[in-house]
Amino acid sequence: MKNKNRMSGQEFAELFKKVSNWGRWGPNEERGTLNYLTSVRLRAATELFRSGRSVSMAIPINEVAGPDNPHPPVHHMIRTYDVHSKLGEPQFVLDYFGTEVHGDCHTHIDALCHVAYKGELYNGKPTSAVTSQGPDLMDITTYAHGIVGRGVLLDIPRLRDVKWLEPGEAVTDDELEAAEKAEGVRLGEGDMFLFRTGHHRRRLELGPWNNGYDGEGRAGLDPNTMLMLHERKVAVFLPDGDGETVPSNVEGVAYPIHALQIAAMGMACADNLQFEELAKICEEEHRWEFMVVLAPLRLPRGTGSLLNPIAIF
Amino acid sequence: MKNKNRMSGQEFAELFKKVSNWGRWGPNEERGTLNYLTSVRLRAATELFRSGRSVSMAIPINEVAGPDNPHPPVHHMIRTYDVHSKLGEPQFVLDYFGTEVHGDCHTHIDALCHVAYKGELYNGKPTSAVTSQGPDLMDITTYAHGIVGRGVLLDIPRLRDVKWLEPGEAVTDDELEAAEKAEGVRLGEGDMFLFRTGHHRRRLELGPWNNGYDGEGRAGLDPNTMLMLHERKVAVFLPDGDGETVPSNVEGVAYPIHALQIAAMGMACADNLQFEELAKICEEEHRWEFMVVLAPLRLPRGTGSLLNPIAIF
Amino acid sequence: MKNKNRMSGQEFAELFKKVSNWGRWGPNEERGTLNYLTSVRLRAATELFRSGRSVSMAIPINEVAGPDNPHPPVHHMIRTYDVHSKLGEPQFVLDYFGTEVHGDCHTHIDALCHVAYKGELYNGKPTSAVTSQGPDLMDITTYAHGIVGRGVLLDIPRLRDVKWLEPGEAVTDDELEAAEKAEGVRLGEGDMFLFRTGHHRRRLELGPWNNGYDGEGRAGLDPNTMLMLHERKVAVFLPDGDGETVPSNVEGVAYPIHALQIAAMGMACADNLQFEELAKICEEEHRWEFMVVLAPLRLPRGTGSLLNPIAIF
Amino acid sequence: MKNKNRMSGQEFAELFKKVSNWGRWGPNEERGTLNYLTSVRLRAATELFRSGRSVSMAIPINEVAGPDNPHPPVHHMIRTYDVHSKLGEPQFVLDYFGTEVHGDCHTHIDALCHVAYKGELYNGKPTSAVTSQGPDLMDITTYAHGIVGRGVLLDIPRLRDVKWLEPGEAVTDDELEAAEKAEGVRLGEGDMFLFRTGHHRRRLELGPWNNGYDGEGRAGLDPNTMLMLHERKVAVFLPDGDGETVPSNVEGVAYPIHALQIAAMGMACADNLQFEELAKICEEEHRWEFMVVLAPLRLPRGTGSLLNPIAIF
Repeated sequence: MKNKNRMSGQEFAELFKKVSNWGRWGPNEERGTLNYLTSVRLRAATELFRSGRSVSMAIPINEVAGPDNPHPPVHHMIRTYDVHSKLGEPQFVLDYFGTEVHGDCHTHIDALCHVAYKGELYNGKPTSAVTSQGPDLMDITTYAHGIVGRGVLLDIPRLRDVKWLEPGEAVTDDELEAAEKAEGVRLGEGDMFLFRTGHHRRRLELGPWNNGYDGEGRAGLDPNTMLMLHERKVAVFLPDGDGETVPSNVEGVAYPIHALQIAAMGMACADNLQFEELAKICEEEHRWEFMVVLAPLRLPRGTGSLLNPIAIF
Repeated sequence: MKNKNRMSGQEFAELFKKVSNWGRWGPNEERGTLNYLTSVRLRAATELFRSGRSVSMAIPINEVAGPDNPHPPVHHMIRTYDVHSKLGEPQFVLDYFGTEVHGDCHTHIDALCHVAYKGELYNGKPTSAVTSQGPDLMDITTYAHGIVGRGVLLDIPRLRDVKWLEPGEAVTDDELEAAEKAEGVRLGEGDMFLFRTGHHRRRLELGPWNNGYDGEGRAGLDPNTMLMLHERKVAVFLPDGDGETVPSNVEGVAYPIHALQIAAMGMACADNLQFEELAKICEEEHRWEFMVVLAPLRLPRGTGSLLNPIAIF
Repeated sequence: MKNKNRMSGQEFAELFKKVSNWGRWGPNEERGTLNYLTSVRLRAATELFRSGRSVSMAIPINEVAGPDNPHPPVHHMIRTYDVHSKLGEPQFVLDYFGTEVHGDCHTHIDALCHVAYKGELYNGKPTSAVTSQGPDLMDITTYAHGIVGRGVLLDIPRLRDVKWLEPGEAVTDDELEAAEKAEGVRLGEGDMFLFRTGHHRRRLELGPWNNGYDGEGRAGLDPNTMLMLHERKVAVFLPDGDGETVPSNVEGVAYPIHALQIAAMGMACADNLQFEELAKICEEEHRWEFMVVLAPLRLPRGTGSLLNPIAIF
Repeated sequence: MKNKNRMSGQEFAELFKKVSNWGRWGPNEERGTLNYLTSVRLRAATELFRSGRSVSMAIPINEVAGPDNPHPPVHHMIRTYDVHSKLGEPQFVLDYFGTEVHGDCHTHIDALCHVAYKGELYNGKPTSAVTSQGPDLMDITTYAHGIVGRGVLLDIPRLRDVKWLEPGEAVTDDELEAAEKAEGVRLGEGDMFLFRTGHHRRRLELGPWNNGYDGEGRAGLDPNTMLMLHERKVAVFLPDGDGETVPSNVEGVAYPIHALQIAAMGMACADNLQFEELAKICEEEHRWEFMVVLAPLRLPRGTGSLLNPIAIF
């Protein structure tokens, strides 16, 4: 298979350079490919409204430890109705929730500071900008005002007529273009690319698995597809899984997609979405484009945020 | 002042009954006033798009203990670039974030289970539905697919030409209607009511204060305004502060607005938004209505969620 | 085997009554069997000093999720030497540690409020004394000033000449007395009873297992041994495992040892100690009695505390 | 006052060198001054037993944010008796506790990795040994088997006949020797030095205060007293406060005592003990020496541990 052609370290370095946006919008700029998502593009997204349905693309937060959830969140009630406030009515209940922001089974968005390639962050910033006190730049508040635009779902299992892609499989640009044709859509400037491998469906049907290098791996994109995303000026990447094929086919680069998208291109990327509810609505409405809203928590010095991405039809 | 007329417990009980939606949409229904926010209303919201600007209405998450933040969040880096993954490039940094979900200075949304009045939740459900293991019903996942609609900002300090309302002040329906006229808007069926007292501006200029019963209090709504919201079929309430006047003018009811909105009406309510960035854009665009998207975390058995409410123009 | 004789609910109720210390030291008393550990007994313990060696009986805190660790602790560095304090030298590093206090693989001590039998705590106190705001009585600060006394290790695998007891095995009083003889010791008034089944050695050699009712279970004591502990006036119970045989042989009572020791007797009980280092020293010194010091954290309203129990020879 | 003589950076560097134990017990040794606490010394401690009383020297854990507690612990019930286990009787309640390990009002012990002076840890180890993944050496498990020895309380407010020392006051060796005489004790080889300034009594009577450089400061030791501790071969330091005088009298060194004790001498040091209960017992028993047991949590890669230090008479 083409997608299993090994890519050498040298070839990867060249690819990194080709898709790099370093300096494109200025030396201290932090929005990266969101610069493509202009208000013109945003207004185009709103023209997609018809039914007014909205649907979540988040996995319900999973508090059970497992092979893809080694550090499950902490979630406790801190007050129930068993005590009565001395202030009188009404009464209130409260909870506490704590979590690692990233991980392999929680829907979240990455800040650009989250990834470094060979000692450099996006736009050539040094890794020393992130200390034990958090990032000095490119934290998640870059996205504080939300990300709103047109989403295009390319559903590869639908194209292949399978339930899901198997771990280790890598999708090429040919296949992305075939999905575009099958769905009658085209990824364009300022778009959000929703990439479905069926990762979450596999998880629902077979149970969670270790999708890392010490486990079974995961399905994702061939690194060369970044050329297509770069040419098309895609703004945002929203995969189930996280876009990576594990193991990767790049020599010495375990997670080439993150390196290219985040460190080279400065792309706004989320991980571990689920499209099971969305995919049904796409079939019902027979369209694979819609408005998408991302509203990460406004957390200063955050390297990312749990996320509930919303699609609106 | 009318707004300082004391309301007796009996009068409040009658008001509670008048605005109650218990049983209106079925005995086990959990969406409450969101039933007003139909797809027709949602489409109307999208017709407001012009400039394509989006703006956050969240307070940046505040990690510093203070008079309105007695239990500040826990936020730590859990991995920085000082260690190198044995898997090779790229490298990643991670953080951990834990927080109480409610509180007096964090922008959040309440689940309907959060408030009980005299032993009953919205729709007459018993408080025993919430245990130390969390709520059995009306948790935050009721809002999992997001809340999207038309937002109308009624800016009371703008109307009064003051920087902010002082703690203890209560806004009446007369004043809400005056704000509508001044802004050329009208709160209607399925709308989101954004209510500005200038709470956050006061906080920015004077510093945080204890806005509870053992402190200086806060500005909010007169409980009788709930009759107006009920008649107008408002779907969502989004205040700076939390809508409450502290101290309240209701005998024996410390937080009458929460009791009425959440326990009686089943209204989707957020607390502690900030409208400082929004208000500027409203002036620039000279309109006080816009699309709003709320995307609470999809947290099973959550009593609420931190929130980044987004307005889109 | 005698230890597999089923005990009926009625027989258990009688046993509960026989070993009950309710009211023995007063109606609101919270020290239970620690009343046996008088200063006379404590001085006797100190006479055991010879070599001056001290040894931990705690399992190193385990941060890896697993079958007996479903909610692993949260442990993060919150400051490293990558930032420099503006105050100048010296520099400091800090960490954060959060954990559930109980569980099946962390060495901890139970407060008496931790266990209720049929709606009653030790000394007949109602379960309503523990709310979502914590216990109103019998919290871990009862043991704030430490527990110091004579420890006697009864090492059952040593007696049986096996590596460990298998899950489901229950040790009877005959066997405890045989261990006493083999070691030349006798459990007496005010003593701390260290009970070794080899649980931790099994864990070290075979790996962690689910030792609950939905797993393989664990080895422990036959409930009738409580008669012996009651007669002997034992003050403290320190097991590897937690003293329970899972599954239990008592009809309708899943954890009879906790019910008897804590709810009936008011005994200070810890769980999940490890005696691997201790057992070697006992062999070297050829004695199975020594001084023991327990110093639980002084946590108001705590239901227990992680613990590092220290034996001193 | 002598104790307010300024010490230059050069004088401090010489003092650091004089009291340094680097290399004294080997190049990779981690026990530092605990090497003085031999079993001979330990046995001597046990000869102090008379009354058999034990007493805590820990401050009850404080969950309320305040000027010396900016990041209060997280402490929640995670299960109460409002739910019934399907396994049947007995029932259990549980809590969760999370905390920063150090800080200015929680009784805790420092690991040697906690302090670096000019880029070097005790024994000349590099600060790079501590990363975001924790310390590679000199973590708190160095003290896993507990620290047991003779404690000597030098009570300076008692000597001066005052309630407490005021912030900024520094105690000299003359005064320590005067306290020894007044109490009829002498700090010697392998001893634990309990140093009372009355810090906690002041806190109880006047309320908490900011005891750091941006606040009122605290009372402590003059840095030259380290010469005396070094000559006397003291093993352990247990202060109320943390031994530091804030502001310090050393040019460019904000916390000279930590630099000297931990980085130079490798001394086992705890912070923020309270001696209010202990001091009463000392008066009653008319002796200021007793056995002390420290049992830090056995936390791999911990930079310290909350602690409940126990004195036994």
